[in-house]
Amino acid sequence: MSCATRRAALRALLPGAGVDALLVTDLLNVRYLTGFTGSNAALLVHGDGDAASRFCTDGRYRTQAADEVPDLATVIDRASALELAGLAGELGVGRLGFESDAVTVDAHAALAEAAGPVAMERAPGLVHRLRAVKDDGEVEALRRACAIGDAALAGLLDDGGLRPGRTEREVALDLEDRMRALGAAGPAFDTILAAGAHSAVPHHRPTAAVLQPGDLVKLDFGALVDGYHSDMTRTVVLGPAAAWQRELHALVAQAQAAGREALAPGTEVTAVDAAAREVVERAGRGEEFVHGLGHGVGLQIHEAPALSRTGTGALAAGMAVTVEPGVYLPGRGGVRIEDTLVVRDGAPELLTHTTRELLEV
Amino acid sequence: MSCATRRAALRALLPGAGVDALLVTDLLNVRYLTGFTGSNAALLVHGDGDAASRFCTDGRYRTQAADEVPDLATVIDRASALELAGLAGELGVGRLGFESDAVTVDAHAALAEAAGPVAMERAPGLVHRLRAVKDDGEVEALRRACAIGDAALAGLLDDGGLRPGRTEREVALDLEDRMRALGAAGPAFDTILAAGAHSAVPHHRPTAAVLQPGDLVKLDFGALVDGYHSDMTRTVVLGPAAAWQRELHALVAQAQAAGREALAPGTEVTAVDAAAREVVERAGRGEEFVHGLGHGVGLQIHEAPALSRTGTGALAAGMAVTVEPGVYLPGRGGVRIEDTLVVRDGAPELLTHTTRELLEV
Repeated sequence: MSCATRRAALRALLPGAGVDALLVTDLLNVRYLTGFTGSNAALLVHGDGDAASRFCTDGRYRTQAADEVPDLATVIDRASALELAGLAGELGVGRLGFESDAVTVDAHAALAEAAGPVAMERAPGLVHRLRAVKDDGEVEALRRACAIGDAALAGLLDDGGLRPGRTEREVALDLEDRMRALGAAGPAFDTILAAGAHSAVPHHRPTAAVLQPGDLVKLDFGALVDGYHSDMTRTVVLGPAAAWQRELHALVAQAQAAGREALAPGTEVTAVDAAAREVVERAGRGEEFVHGLGHGVGLQIHEAPALSRTGTGALAAGMAVTVEPGVYLPGRGGVRIEDTLVVRDGAPELLTHTTRELLEV
Repeated sequence: MSCATRRAALRALLPGAGVDALLVTDLLNVRYLTGFTGSNAALLVHGDGDAASRFCTDGRYRTQAADEVPDLATVIDRASALELAGLAGELGVGRLGFESDAVTVDAHAALAEAAGPVAMERAPGLVHRLRAVKDDGEVEALRRACAIGDAALAGLLDDGGLRPGRTEREVALDLEDRMRALGAAGPAFDTILAAGAHSAVPHHRPTAAVLQPGDLVKLDFGALVDGYHSDMTRTVVLGPAAAWQRELHALVAQAQAAGREALAPGTEVTAVDAAAREVVERAGRGEEFVHGLGHGVGLQIHEAPALSRTGTGALAAGMAVTVEPGVYLPGRGGVRIEDTLVVRDGAPELLTHTTRELLEV
């Protein structure tokens, strides 16, 4: 889908938001709607069409803007958002929407002053609503990012890179280097590599702790490809699994399968969370599943929709989400299993393919 | 300086801002004031002292909060900022300051509702004002980060890692790997590695372009150590420098020296920028120095103060800043030279020590 098509889709939402135009200042939203990848820009999407819309960036990006945003009139100014707010009146905008979920209180005050007689109206979440449903190009980028994650983990396991004696940090860097070598721009986020009791810490950061035989090792990682993030977690055992490790893993795997199976267009996000959570609760471990089930993934590692008890709304075909239940026994160890999937009519499309069986490495 | 000392310094600013307490929601500001390094937290700094203050994070971080923030009463709640806004009344707060330069319009509306009868007042920039002046522990972290940058570049040069035939991306990754091997948590930002005509693009991202004999190569990179960022740029030539490269480098070196020499407590940031810019302008190249002279550096790679034509305020002893003039000839090449320094009474303290002479490698 071209950026022009995305802007047209946004334009269709403007009347419902009660505005004539939207001032887009969130840089990832600007990127989504224009393809621009620089660090300073704003976009005014006018309800009348692209001809009445304006893109603004500063002098450092003059050449890049011409390359990346050839299809919009570009204004060069360092204070991009203020400049476009100031132009809104000339462009015939009476009510200018702004991203009230991204614009700070101080920035809003400055924008309102720049806009003069044009009324600034809150219009949160419009672009995020579009971004939640991925088009084919976006799914393809996610597919490649997930494939790199799968291949990096396979390489790590094949080469004996996950073994007692190495530190959490060494293994994490090894995994990240493999993703880069496979073509990722970098890791999608700081790799979580947690061994032994550390695996019970949901968001543990890798330390100099040395992996020991018998450890549960939780690997939560992803690759960044063309701006899109993959996300996968596997928990393995170094050597033969103890009975409690096997039971814990089986429970989480069952919950994760229930979560994946609940993914369907029209299903409330709370119902998806509940499908997995009920499995854990029935086993008496509900208190030890301390986070939501999953999240949307795309240009951000966490984006709409949130699959959690407090999430709102229903799934739609084309949404890319993670399903990642975890059960954590403080001081002992924890297990999380996570996949990235795309919601489809019928069964969801799985993008991460590494086995969900318990690996004893 | 302990976090308690920093909170005391913040407390001293509250009367001037007209508030009884400050609700700190910017995570780096929370980290600065508490030591907490998790991804969700808020802090209410009460004018009456630490006993009346509250820290809030969610259940994932219960253990980490106990370790990192042992000296403040901790509340566990996922909606940390809302929770503390709701507690403000009970804590005797009448006017609650909030970080209006960080809080979004929508978040402010929710906070104001949670605060009930407590008045929410804009109080931007208070913690950033403190953070601009580094204490000894912070300077030590910056010193180590800068030393890692120096050592990584020295290693790259010694090992022949910067040579024709390698790609920009390979050299950038090599440099980043060296920083990690030397103890950095990672690069301070995405390394800029720009060869040949690419060196004329101020914020070029490394590509698969192959380095050629005779290229100017601009390396702008840094290390992250204990949350603190180093920042250094050097521009070298692959082989003997052409006359124009030598002249361009000499001009930028002269401007950079002028900028460094202008660093002193009490000097307006605009005057520091001007000291370097005048050198470039006298050479008739003012139009090709397209960015500000430098920026503060610390827990963020870009923080207060801004050394630029549009910056405000004066330097103070203890501020850590970069000085990085650049001159860019589109289609030919550019030179930037950047150091990280600490403003001191007397001469500034240089933290980056790699030679500023033109290297022909």
